[in-house]
Amino acid sequence: MKYVQRPEEGLQWRAVNDAVERVFRAHGMGHVQMPPKSYVTFPHGDFRSMPAYVPELGMAGVKIVNVHPQNPSKGLPTVMALTVILSIENGMPEAVINATRLTDMRTGAAGAVAAAYLAPRKSVVMGVVGSGRQAETQVLATAEALTIEELLVWSRNENHAQEFAQRFPEFNARSVSLQKACGAQLIATTTPATAPVVRSAWVADGTHINAIGADAPGKEELEAAILRRARVFVDDMTQAIHSGEVNVPIRAGMYSAKDIAGTLGEVLLGKIGRTSPDEITIFDSTGLAITDLAIADLALANAAFVELPFP
Amino acid sequence: MKYVQRPEEGLQWRAVNDAVERVFRAHGMGHVQMPPKSYVTFPHGDFRSMPAYVPELGMAGVKIVNVHPQNPSKGLPTVMALTVILSIENGMPEAVINATRLTDMRTGAAGAVAAAYLAPRKSVVMGVVGSGRQAETQVLATAEALTIEELLVWSRNENHAQEFAQRFPEFNARSVSLQKACGAQLIATTTPATAPVVRSAWVADGTHINAIGADAPGKEELEAAILRRARVFVDDMTQAIHSGEVNVPIRAGMYSAKDIAGTLGEVLLGKIGRTSPDEITIFDSTGLAITDLAIADLALANAAFVELPFP
Repeated sequence: MKYVQRPEEGLQWRAVNDAVERVFRAHGMGHVQMPPKSYVTFPHGDFRSMPAYVPELGMAGVKIVNVHPQNPSKGLPTVMALTVILSIENGMPEAVINATRLTDMRTGAAGAVAAAYLAPRKSVVMGVVGSGRQAETQVLATAEALTIEELLVWSRNENHAQEFAQRFPEFNARSVSLQKACGAQLIATTTPATAPVVRSAWVADGTHINAIGADAPGKEELEAAILRRARVFVDDMTQAIHSGEVNVPIRAGMYSAKDIAGTLGEVLLGKIGRTSPDEITIFDSTGLAITDLAIADLALANAAFVELPFP
Repeated sequence: MKYVQRPEEGLQWRAVNDAVERVFRAHGMGHVQMPPKSYVTFPHGDFRSMPAYVPELGMAGVKIVNVHPQNPSKGLPTVMALTVILSIENGMPEAVINATRLTDMRTGAAGAVAAAYLAPRKSVVMGVVGSGRQAETQVLATAEALTIEELLVWSRNENHAQEFAQRFPEFNARSVSLQKACGAQLIATTTPATAPVVRSAWVADGTHINAIGADAPGKEELEAAILRRARVFVDDMTQAIHSGEVNVPIRAGMYSAKDIAGTLGEVLLGKIGRTSPDEITIFDSTGLAITDLAIADLALANAAFVELPFP
């Protein structure tokens, strides 16, 4: 059994995006197994168990991932993850992978794949709402899929937004007001908000929004009116209704699950998609265990590891 | 993050039984979190993800366990397991534990605890149906809780039964017919059967049965008529109805979930139990993630480990 501490070393965004796109296609064809995430709640956070099996990759396993919002005050990441990979043939654990950074990366890649298929143009002004690790990987992955002409960054803490912008001079990045960031052609929302941050009035027709932050019941970043104006695609129907951007508006009766256009997998297969340049499109990303397997598969091909005795 | 390859070394059955009893009590009081097991199926087996949190122990994590019935022909165990323990305070993975042997042990302990509270006498003739690792741990754990006067062993392969019996001269063990094994006062059924093995006619009034083998939909070891004669206790109501000894008879309309007396936790709390010496009692064991945490907690106190860098 391998232990891989730094699986992200040497990974190329292009390859990550391609691997993630491939499993979304398999998902769209119904060729994966992915039981619902299980949530366990703690006094100061939670953890989720995310099992899956992708026959096409010959990969199966479980990602175990926590969310502890108070961690940064202790010098720890809010989210940390470990992925266990099992042999399909005999069930033996084959690898334990530090998946903290991989989790950010596969989420970035999901956004990039969605943007590649749903954004109104191949060259865009991109707005990011939030300036943490999720925002960074959305930018890095998207830059492999589209040309980012300008990068407009908003954060609750303006210093954070400025620091973030300084890292991306190649995209003409700058710190802006929330309203200005929401005026971009491609928006990635990456906050842990539990009340809408993005107002409908700020969002122009034709925008594509990657709604990344909401991944648990009660979380939401977009005013429900935006959902009603938009064509909404989800990563997985069950997960999104339970814990995605649509979860709060559906429970509140402000949006209906019947109005969801379908999944990203179906978009990639050409079954559904953007129907006009003026339409707002939304990709509601909750994070799929199959994408954790996709990036683990890629990482295991080259990453350094230590061998652990098992059984 | 620790990796523990041999967590079972130095564990004492008495302590294991006590630790398992303690979490069953916590379960009976509703003081645990344990989402349903998630099943993923492969062409030649499956794996289950079993998350849980026991606040009283300060323990949380996930056991990942496979079942590949053809493994023995490849020189591998049918069942292998890995448990990941997380910090409750910050969600960081604290330990990865080889839980293959611990899984057998905590299952043995669950049977021993049930037998201690439900068997008709403190000194019993014990019958075991099946002669694998589950049968062995049922005997070892039960011997700490009750006096085993005689041990009657049946296996489909008589040589296996004889080899098994030779390991337990202290219990006057011997290989017997299936019918004879089922005439014992305490029976442990430990086969992977998907059709009844134990007939009602062979089981005497007053017997206690630990039904261990059925832990997935479609598995069953006892003729449904035995359930109808008996007072049935389960480890967990949801899991048992889904995948325990009662699952097939309930689906077939030959037994009703309403007839289940309650959980082992409720037995330990004195809320329910055996009501007469002549009653047949059954403990339907599916295997609880909280018992994996209980034995992991015990093992981590003393086991040798290697330190893995994380994050």
